[in-house]
Amino acid sequence: MRLHVPIQLRWSDLDAYNHVNNVEMLRILQEARIQAFWADGDDPDGAGTAVLDSGVGGSTLSLIAHQEMEYLAPVPYLRKPLDIELWIGRLGGASIQVCYEIYSPEGGAPRVLFGRASTTLVMVDPGTGEPVRIGERARKAWAAYVEEPVKFTRR
Amino acid sequence: MRLHVPIQLRWSDLDAYNHVNNVEMLRILQEARIQAFWADGDDPDGAGTAVLDSGVGGSTLSLIAHQEMEYLAPVPYLRKPLDIELWIGRLGGASIQVCYEIYSPEGGAPRVLFGRASTTLVMVDPGTGEPVRIGERARKAWAAYVEEPVKFTRR
Amino acid sequence: MRLHVPIQLRWSDLDAYNHVNNVEMLRILQEARIQAFWADGDDPDGAGTAVLDSGVGGSTLSLIAHQEMEYLAPVPYLRKPLDIELWIGRLGGASIQVCYEIYSPEGGAPRVLFGRASTTLVMVDPGTGEPVRIGERARKAWAAYVEEPVKFTRR
Amino acid sequence: MRLHVPIQLRWSDLDAYNHVNNVEMLRILQEARIQAFWADGDDPDGAGTAVLDSGVGGSTLSLIAHQEMEYLAPVPYLRKPLDIELWIGRLGGASIQVCYEIYSPEGGAPRVLFGRASTTLVMVDPGTGEPVRIGERARKAWAAYVEEPVKFTRR
Repeated sequence: MRLHVPIQLRWSDLDAYNHVNNVEMLRILQEARIQAFWADGDDPDGAGTAVLDSGVGGSTLSLIAHQEMEYLAPVPYLRKPLDIELWIGRLGGASIQVCYEIYSPEGGAPRVLFGRASTTLVMVDPGTGEPVRIGERARKAWAAYVEEPVKFTRR
Repeated sequence: MRLHVPIQLRWSDLDAYNHVNNVEMLRILQEARIQAFWADGDDPDGAGTAVLDSGVGGSTLSLIAHQEMEYLAPVPYLRKPLDIELWIGRLGGASIQVCYEIYSPEGGAPRVLFGRASTTLVMVDPGTGEPVRIGERARKAWAAYVEEPVKFTRR
Repeated sequence: MRLHVPIQLRWSDLDAYNHVNNVEMLRILQEARIQAFWADGDDPDGAGTAVLDSGVGGSTLSLIAHQEMEYLAPVPYLRKPLDIELWIGRLGGASIQVCYEIYSPEGGAPRVLFGRASTTLVMVDPGTGEPVRIGERARKAWAAYVEEPVKFTRR
Repeated sequence: MRLHVPIQLRWSDLDAYNHVNNVEMLRILQEARIQAFWADGDDPDGAGTAVLDSGVGGSTLSLIAHQEMEYLAPVPYLRKPLDIELWIGRLGGASIQVCYEIYSPEGGAPRVLFGRASTTLVMVDPGTGEPVRIGERARKAWAAYVEEPVKFTRR
């Protein structure tokens, strides 16, 4: 099962070529990931999209270990939010691979796949820097979102 | 009359002090201003918030001539969009002063005023760089949004 | 007396209009200010430009209270660093007004003034949030950099 | 042979965790790449580091097709520029893979490898969008910078 996270572009995501900059694409994925992993408990006013969150966070720090992105089509300025599909490609002992496909705004036709990407995060103890095993509660909550890892056609 | 433009924060708006960076506050105002002035005709899928737009744009370029902001309280990370109040403080021959008050997300209590700001834009001909008089159609459309200019308490 | 702080543009400072974005101009001033106020003691490898620093910092937090900028000419992409002139326009009890003029890279002719700006910072105790008086050591060190505050021609 | 491109951090590259944000790392590589490929002819005042540039550019557009980065250690705020090693991992018909290793500032000891990365660019005709073969002049100029592609230890 995949999450759909809508991310609103900002005009400042454009670069001098007048399309969304390649670096900003990764920022957009960062925002999608953060929204997906938001803990509901952190903020009683929160939108409650944090279906992936389940006990990691708080005393655990997640470090980004690896990131990869394939760009399939330039993204123009769009007023409606991009439709980011997000799922878990690999659920390791202390690490997790988040996968993404970036689509044109929901409801538009034809639907355009702008790119695909993955981010590998490692959970560590902020004090010692040692990897921390992902707990059973998180594993159970995340299980529904595990699918085949994203496949890159160009490497 | 004032417009209310909701602007969603990004986690990356925070700086190393863990609140929204002073520079990013101006980017948020830039996004609010762009949304307020969006031409509906540009994008048939647009959200249609562009009540201020009326004929400026297209063959006219708006240059930023002056900007001022007063910061009243640090902005923490918020999941709900900031509520940007936006109006026109001065409607000149070829220039316009856009005024803003930045409030906490709608519906929260108490309502917090995080800051106030203004941006002066000058309309110019992109070819010659000469100022271009704002047309009657735009003047008429904008008239309803003209109020007293924002007052800064500290200068 | 004024400091000259060279700030290297980044290509990503450009926006879709292919000149340095108005918001990024304030980020450039932020970087100039940070370099000017760097404490030499913080980093033995530091470049040692921190002539303004003198005892504020560490246990004191500086909050930005007000910022103003006047844009005189669009800034194109330049390989050589902008030449930021920086001085103190007002040295208050617990606050300081930093003034700037942004010039084209040193050595180029003619010299272009791209804009002028000011930032007012208030020193506060990070625990209580109360204003903290600027000490004698800092006052003495900064005295040489106090000049007439920047004058804005358009407000 | 590898190029060494010094890139000065900005304080705003830090995120709320107080180290250089993972997305900003890719912006730093973007800046290094742009400096390496700068055409000397574009700007007579330029620093002249553009040893890689040789005839691509002008009428050719380079699109980013793929990007990958491995993060080995968090990057703190550093006053001295990062030392980016940059070389060509693959020189294809119409594409080029740029490889990077990101090192601590030159002269510091011990030298720290913060990460490694690659960017694949495809040269296209801006009018038709069709791939454009890299010319002989560029191939000759770049040949000296071709080395084994970067190897990622985690994927």
